[in-house]
Amino acid sequence: MTAFAGAEEPVAAAEERHGMRIDVVTIFPEYLEPLNVSLVGKARARGQLDVHLHDLRSWTHDVHRTVDDTPYGGGPGMVMKPEPWGEALDAVRAAGPADQVPTLVVPTPSGVPFTQELAQELAARPWLAFAPARYEGIDRRVIEEAATRMPVVEASIGDYVLAGGEVAVLVMVEAIARLLPGVLGNAESHRDDSFAPGAMADLLEGPVYTKPAEWRGRAVPEVLLSGNHGRIARWRREQAFTRTLANRPDLVARWRLSAFDKKEREALSVLGLGWDEQRGRFLRVAEAVEE
Amino acid sequence: MTAFAGAEEPVAAAEERHGMRIDVVTIFPEYLEPLNVSLVGKARARGQLDVHLHDLRSWTHDVHRTVDDTPYGGGPGMVMKPEPWGEALDAVRAAGPADQVPTLVVPTPSGVPFTQELAQELAARPWLAFAPARYEGIDRRVIEEAATRMPVVEASIGDYVLAGGEVAVLVMVEAIARLLPGVLGNAESHRDDSFAPGAMADLLEGPVYTKPAEWRGRAVPEVLLSGNHGRIARWRREQAFTRTLANRPDLVARWRLSAFDKKEREALSVLGLGWDEQRGRFLRVAEAVEE
Repeated sequence: MTAFAGAEEPVAAAEERHGMRIDVVTIFPEYLEPLNVSLVGKARARGQLDVHLHDLRSWTHDVHRTVDDTPYGGGPGMVMKPEPWGEALDAVRAAGPADQVPTLVVPTPSGVPFTQELAQELAARPWLAFAPARYEGIDRRVIEEAATRMPVVEASIGDYVLAGGEVAVLVMVEAIARLLPGVLGNAESHRDDSFAPGAMADLLEGPVYTKPAEWRGRAVPEVLLSGNHGRIARWRREQAFTRTLANRPDLVARWRLSAFDKKEREALSVLGLGWDEQRGRFLRVAEAVEE
Repeated sequence: MTAFAGAEEPVAAAEERHGMRIDVVTIFPEYLEPLNVSLVGKARARGQLDVHLHDLRSWTHDVHRTVDDTPYGGGPGMVMKPEPWGEALDAVRAAGPADQVPTLVVPTPSGVPFTQELAQELAARPWLAFAPARYEGIDRRVIEEAATRMPVVEASIGDYVLAGGEVAVLVMVEAIARLLPGVLGNAESHRDDSFAPGAMADLLEGPVYTKPAEWRGRAVPEVLLSGNHGRIARWRREQAFTRTLANRPDLVARWRLSAFDKKEREALSVLGLGWDEQRGRFLRVAEAVEE
């Protein structure tokens, strides 16, 4: 995985020892400070993550260290110039292992959605280079030219407008880093995550409680104190249905009938959801009548 | 808007002067360092944003400053204890203006989607308090009790799993701050944003270009050099259609026929999209045949 791994060593062992390499090119390296803290900071300290920050302005050659200019075709805002980005990506490529190319990740509202699935896919790669833009974005030719020599992923962390891609890099690196081998202490803690595959796929997590059993006059739901694991599991699933229905009707459209047993189908019907055989999805009773 | 505004002053003037108040309660105040940088940092320096960070552990009373405990009902991970959070929210409420309550914003994967619309709604409020969780989340009773005395918004920045809510706070504060009056230099730069209402609603932004006209053998599209504003506007809309179709088919389902003129409908049909009168949405020709 790195140029220093002896040829006789199996690649997997080298990977385990040296971890993932991440390069970030930005005009605000100080924005990436949180990469020194918490989970990502610890993963770096343990050598599971090897992060290199680069100031894009190092690759400017004018006295003002200019990285932007007006857009061709007119319009408001500024566009990031191709030359500094092109040189920066050349330098990043040259600084890493000679037998590898990075995957270039460009945070942009015009990209594909950054999902847990994409996080998992990127977590499997040995080397990621992030190119967070400011202003109206990076000159398109930078992305096109990069794509001729490395994989490129343009991804959006959500449907809102940010001032720049740096905070999106923090989001992506955190989501990816916690999936790397050994970064989370307890392998189990992935299992019940919202959006993780398995029994909780397409379900939001329900409420959680800890001691004391009563706080400010509010009691923990009795079922959670019952010690009856079957009842607890069933209650948690039903809480997850209810919350998903309330907050994320878009996820309900992905539910398959086979994911629910008889009792759960009854519970869903109490919530006003019935399976529509023809459309192959759950509908609210009101919807079914309207359509 | 603050306790110091004279009674004779109109509220709007007081708002303009004192800006939005933001409180963040967290076990990682250092993670919020980027709030000193870039757009948010400048808005703070100009007094448009008044940010207060609080360490949740200030409201613990044991020698280990414990903020978490095991979940009732069993299962992996830890749950954040209600007592420190309850006291923290009491203290935040008491530290702010006496005639106001904050809106409590809880980043959680189980929340409603954080969208540009929600960012706009929150940007109109004078006081936001953020409660980013770690571990499996905050004891549910904290949210329920808070909801009896202040508005509560539980929101998710996207369908991926983070190590904690802090980076989601950075995302939300940045998206909200840039919408505050006077924070962005040029009012126009909101207009063409992806997800902004208007001509570009539900369309991703297309590619952008700046000087030089040729770079590494790649030329800027000729139309952008033409000076023909009508052609340029049409080309940009068509690029936006194409990119949306490629990266965000979910947005295509929201397109209305009336948003496109005759030439644009022809362009969409070249891309394989036809309007389905019965379903009230655009379908790819292949889909229409299958269904």
